Amino acid sequence: MSTATRAATDAAAMRRALELAERGPARGVNPRVGCVILSPDGRPLAEGWHRGAGTPHAEVDALERLGPDGARGTTAVVTLEPCNHTGRTGPCAQALIAAGVARVVYAVDDPGDHSAGGARTLRDAGIETEAGLLADEVEAFLDDWLFAARHRRPRITVKWASSLDGRVAAPDGSSRWITGPEARADVHRRRTAADAIAVGTGTVLADDPSLTARDADGSLLDAQPVPVVFGRREVPAGAALERHPHDLLRFTGDDLVADLAELQRRGIRSLFIEGGPTLASAFLAAGLADELLVYLAPAVIGGPRTAVADVGVTTIADTLRYDFADLVRLGDDLLVVARPRTAAHPDPSTREKA
Amino acid sequence: MSTATRAATDAAAMRRALELAERGPARGVNPRVGCVILSPDGRPLAEGWHRGAGTPHAEVDALERLGPDGARGTTAVVTLEPCNHTGRTGPCAQALIAAGVARVVYAVDDPGDHSAGGARTLRDAGIETEAGLLADEVEAFLDDWLFAARHRRPRITVKWASSLDGRVAAPDGSSRWITGPEARADVHRRRTAADAIAVGTGTVLADDPSLTARDADGSLLDAQPVPVVFGRREVPAGAALERHPHDLLRFTGDDLVADLAELQRRGIRSLFIEGGPTLASAFLAAGLADELLVYLAPAVIGGPRTAVADVGVTTIADTLRYDFADLVRLGDDLLVVARPRTAAHPDPSTREKA
Repeated sequence: MSTATRAATDAAAMRRALELAERGPARGVNPRVGCVILSPDGRPLAEGWHRGAGTPHAEVDALERLGPDGARGTTAVVTLEPCNHTGRTGPCAQALIAAGVARVVYAVDDPGDHSAGGARTLRDAGIETEAGLLADEVEAFLDDWLFAARHRRPRITVKWASSLDGRVAAPDGSSRWITGPEARADVHRRRTAADAIAVGTGTVLADDPSLTARDADGSLLDAQPVPVVFGRREVPAGAALERHPHDLLRFTGDDLVADLAELQRRGIRSLFIEGGPTLASAFLAAGLADELLVYLAPAVIGGPRTAVADVGVTTIADTLRYDFADLVRLGDDLLVVARPRTAAHPDPSTREKA
Repeated sequence: MSTATRAATDAAAMRRALELAERGPARGVNPRVGCVILSPDGRPLAEGWHRGAGTPHAEVDALERLGPDGARGTTAVVTLEPCNHTGRTGPCAQALIAAGVARVVYAVDDPGDHSAGGARTLRDAGIETEAGLLADEVEAFLDDWLFAARHRRPRITVKWASSLDGRVAAPDGSSRWITGPEARADVHRRRTAADAIAVGTGTVLADDPSLTARDADGSLLDAQPVPVVFGRREVPAGAALERHPHDLLRFTGDDLVADLAELQRRGIRSLFIEGGPTLASAFLAAGLADELLVYLAPAVIGGPRTAVADVGVTTIADTLRYDFADLVRLGDDLLVVARPRTAAHPDPSTREKA
């Protein structure tokens, strides 16, 4: 096979492997992975994909479709670096070596702390191993899983709904409703796309939230985020959270990094922080907000009930800087989407008097 | 002359009168008014316009161009109801009567407390008087003057620049700069279009603002708003305000309605409230904000320095409701323009749990 022919054959197989990967479950601890086994002359011999934790990985799923010695001298094309780790299943790198595979082509390095190193194991066993084929496509496909694996935490969205002056409630604590039905529907659409949704115990005690994703008539949407509560206070018996379709996860919040790593280990790739101000401020202060969703009502309330409390800023130079990524009109309200500022956007710095 | 011909002649004369009015000064105590005198058969005999306080009104300016008895039997077409009031000049209604004018056509009623009633005086003297011709065009042209005359106060814009969480300064008081150069340039463009700009004494003492409208290199723009300070504390000697091209106007702020009526009497038709939080909150709480200009930086600051303090809202049903009229990206920042909610937009009211 010429080099050009082999490259085209590899790329076609990788595209097919990505299609196979898409058959796997979108949520969970493990990434969606697909694999195609090619004969030495480039014919597809077997396909495999991962069906979720506790089932074979994509490489093993493909190898199992071949008879004894059927994989000898073949090329395995796989979307993610074969794992090096014995979990509920054996390491794929060893399975590929044992099957006599001659060559491995994969798209993206495995960022996992236990599983990475598969490529090295393969090379040490004399298997020709190539990384990076269709890496951009596979990166995009595995985006949320890769983010969580690389950062050892879910991607975090801090959400609040406030008046234009940043209040989430009137001085007497009443807060229903600051934003209108379109903004609330948007929140529920985004909740259903998140793996988990968190509040502090203060919000549990004040609002008794259900933390479900619902449609306009109040019925549950198909996908529900896992409810998470941070804080030391008890969740009262009979709380609406007890009727959530998923079991509640509880954390003290004393060590957010450890708590978030635990969420990532449980397969939580995206986390919505819904309040209250204490929890939101803790995440903001810790630099643990990958996205802000601020629903602004065209209203002024004043008084002490601010959406954000102390975020560790004492002087203006310490301001937490973001960039507006999107502005969306939702009925009478406005959704502001902001993301942490990149170095390309310096702080305002011109000095003059007002 | 047929009725149709007369209507066309009147309309052409009113359009011309509006053109004449535009020659007058855009700022000041008096409105810009134009007048055309038509012969009984509809030929234009004389034109006049008002050149500002202390000079003849448009009707008198036109009449003076005619010889003795030159106005007898004519039609006066004038953009605003002739005044009924002896101020620095005599009442126009009496001048028209004395000149023997047979008919008066005007566009918009004079809303002034002293000057209105001219049409009645004319009719009582047997002069045929018609109102409303091209009223919409003249209303639009005199918009700011009519607003101020009808409400006995300037049109009020409450402006603040804050972080996304509604803070105007860090906890240590530092605040330069929350928003970027594009937002600050927009403020100066809007300042130059305002008749006056006000701050509270707290802001004078904290920031020593100059309250001028400047371009990017700091030089003064052509039109400067009159500086106004509300509050009981002294403006310190040597304050930047002393170098403002206009004399400072001082009010205690104890009776905002009376203070604003005084500003209107002085010809201030538009007033910018630039802060601080105490003054802005007082205007908001009193329902004295015709427009909010909120410059939002994509930043979070937290802490006690909110743009708005207590606005008299204690429970959520009392929330001050506005509508977003405009959203403008200014560099990294966002300008939100909001106006008081009209009855067409009810409050959000659906009842459900979060």
